[in-house]
Amino acid sequence: MAERKILYLPPVGLSKEILSSDAMATLESLGTVIWNELDRNYTGDELLELIPGAAVVITSWGSPHITEAHLAEAADLQIVGHAAGSVKNRLAAAGHERGIVLLSAADVIAESVAEYTLWAMLSGQRDPFRYERIMKTERGWRPAHGFISHCLYAKTVGIVSASMVGRRVIGLLKPFGCDVMVYDPYLSQEDAQLSGVRRVALAELFARADIISVHAPITPETRHMITRAHFQSIRDGALFIHTARAWVLDQNAMLAELQKNRFNAFIDVFDPEPLPADHPLRDLDNVFLSPHISGYTAENRLRLVEEIARDIQRFFNNEPMRLVVSYERLPIMA
Amino acid sequence: MAERKILYLPPVGLSKEILSSDAMATLESLGTVIWNELDRNYTGDELLELIPGAAVVITSWGSPHITEAHLAEAADLQIVGHAAGSVKNRLAAAGHERGIVLLSAADVIAESVAEYTLWAMLSGQRDPFRYERIMKTERGWRPAHGFISHCLYAKTVGIVSASMVGRRVIGLLKPFGCDVMVYDPYLSQEDAQLSGVRRVALAELFARADIISVHAPITPETRHMITRAHFQSIRDGALFIHTARAWVLDQNAMLAELQKNRFNAFIDVFDPEPLPADHPLRDLDNVFLSPHISGYTAENRLRLVEEIARDIQRFFNNEPMRLVVSYERLPIMA
Repeated sequence: MAERKILYLPPVGLSKEILSSDAMATLESLGTVIWNELDRNYTGDELLELIPGAAVVITSWGSPHITEAHLAEAADLQIVGHAAGSVKNRLAAAGHERGIVLLSAADVIAESVAEYTLWAMLSGQRDPFRYERIMKTERGWRPAHGFISHCLYAKTVGIVSASMVGRRVIGLLKPFGCDVMVYDPYLSQEDAQLSGVRRVALAELFARADIISVHAPITPETRHMITRAHFQSIRDGALFIHTARAWVLDQNAMLAELQKNRFNAFIDVFDPEPLPADHPLRDLDNVFLSPHISGYTAENRLRLVEEIARDIQRFFNNEPMRLVVSYERLPIMA
Repeated sequence: MAERKILYLPPVGLSKEILSSDAMATLESLGTVIWNELDRNYTGDELLELIPGAAVVITSWGSPHITEAHLAEAADLQIVGHAAGSVKNRLAAAGHERGIVLLSAADVIAESVAEYTLWAMLSGQRDPFRYERIMKTERGWRPAHGFISHCLYAKTVGIVSASMVGRRVIGLLKPFGCDVMVYDPYLSQEDAQLSGVRRVALAELFARADIISVHAPITPETRHMITRAHFQSIRDGALFIHTARAWVLDQNAMLAELQKNRFNAFIDVFDPEPLPADHPLRDLDNVFLSPHISGYTAENRLRLVEEIARDIQRFFNNEPMRLVVSYERLPIMA
């Protein structure tokens, strides 16, 4: 049997963040790895020259997509592992039809996004930033009128989409005794019961939740699915958290409602990104902003290739894999 | 049977925060409630006049302690419900000997402290305060060198004392796949196994944990039990969280080690309180300070009398109670 050829596309700089020594060792145990020695991504043409004979291709952010032209040269290709989030257009449909396995590390990134979301839920109950002001800047103690802080325990939480992130957030909420509502047209009643959540309409979720957290994927049907009416129906004093993509909501409507200062928000994603310096969201005291970082943690990033490599190892050992993208679900995935 | 006499001691102002209408209704369903109509706590002498005939006494912060002198006048007293945290000296030993049931709402407060602790653990991984600076003050986006953020998932966490709060923190950590070490000389091997934690010595906990969180009670043996050597052994880059009482540690040693800027900390409790305006802890960028508020949330406070009232109801219905203070554990409780 000829040595198995493994084509690794991420450039040197990115690999410093996402390629652990364990991942390197695992890949090298599986075949001959052709590493990308450049500090830039390959072009589609370069991939065309490299792909013949490859059984495995490992991709990440900025890697060229695997098109029909590439597939025509890739008779030996069995598995593509994407060490990053979205697999949209990553592999031409012909690859799916041929039965090439597609892996995505999105579930690894989901872990960090879910942690960030729980952090936002807890922060939103406490407004802890005022402590820093009181204790450091003002050098004071509790103000005479006291503090109004809240707790997450037993709150009504609305999760928009039981996506990978949405499901992980539901898991992290388990010990808090929350009443969790989920809007997701693809979530079965049985799955909802297993997860201990209630399925509701999007309008009910927005109107009733103490905390709303958006985890919907980019698909044609989610485009601006959260409308002005939804934002207007949010309860006074509620908390809105958005770590998915600006695509799924009407950002102007969100801004207009936030400017009324009726509720608080944590927003990590914008249209466009970077958020313009003079964007009015930057002026609002009731909004916490972060620069699209919820999925970005050092430990997590360093596991991206590792988890993909382990799944490739499972593939060749005929063991069950963890990160396979199902072709049926592809249209409703991020 | 004469109407049961219920003596309610918390003053009007405090009752606005801790007495819900449900709690009032429950208490009034159980007997004749003598409400405190004053906006101050009773004195011990006033309690002496009020206590004869009472079957129930409800106390809270600042209520007079029930001494042997009170007990001599309280032949009908069956149960004391403390709608606050520490029950130390709340009821004279003679009351315990006579079999008077003592309830404490400490476990309700523990819920808020545990939530705050998890918030601190998540915040400490992300340093989210910089986002506010970057997005609002500097009106920028991600810095060129990127962000270093971390995740809680799979970290090694050291919990000092499996107290009410400590146990709740262990519960909140369950979905995070952490390796949880506990120092608590009163935690049995069996209980540790049931909770999925490892028992370790205090020195090992300090030297090995990524995150250390202190939940030890005030007892004679916990006085300054966390020493200079413990602080010196904390790993570079670790996170130290303290929401218990300054009593349990050497605050000067903690300060000296924090001033080296080797690790980060979230500190909620101090000696003395309020923390003096010129205290050097206020000058440290690697320390987040809050004014002893971790247990203070509006929802939680409003449940204090309610939960006590429900347990009193259970007592009279001969049902199992939830908040009973066991006399054996009293010496090791906060």
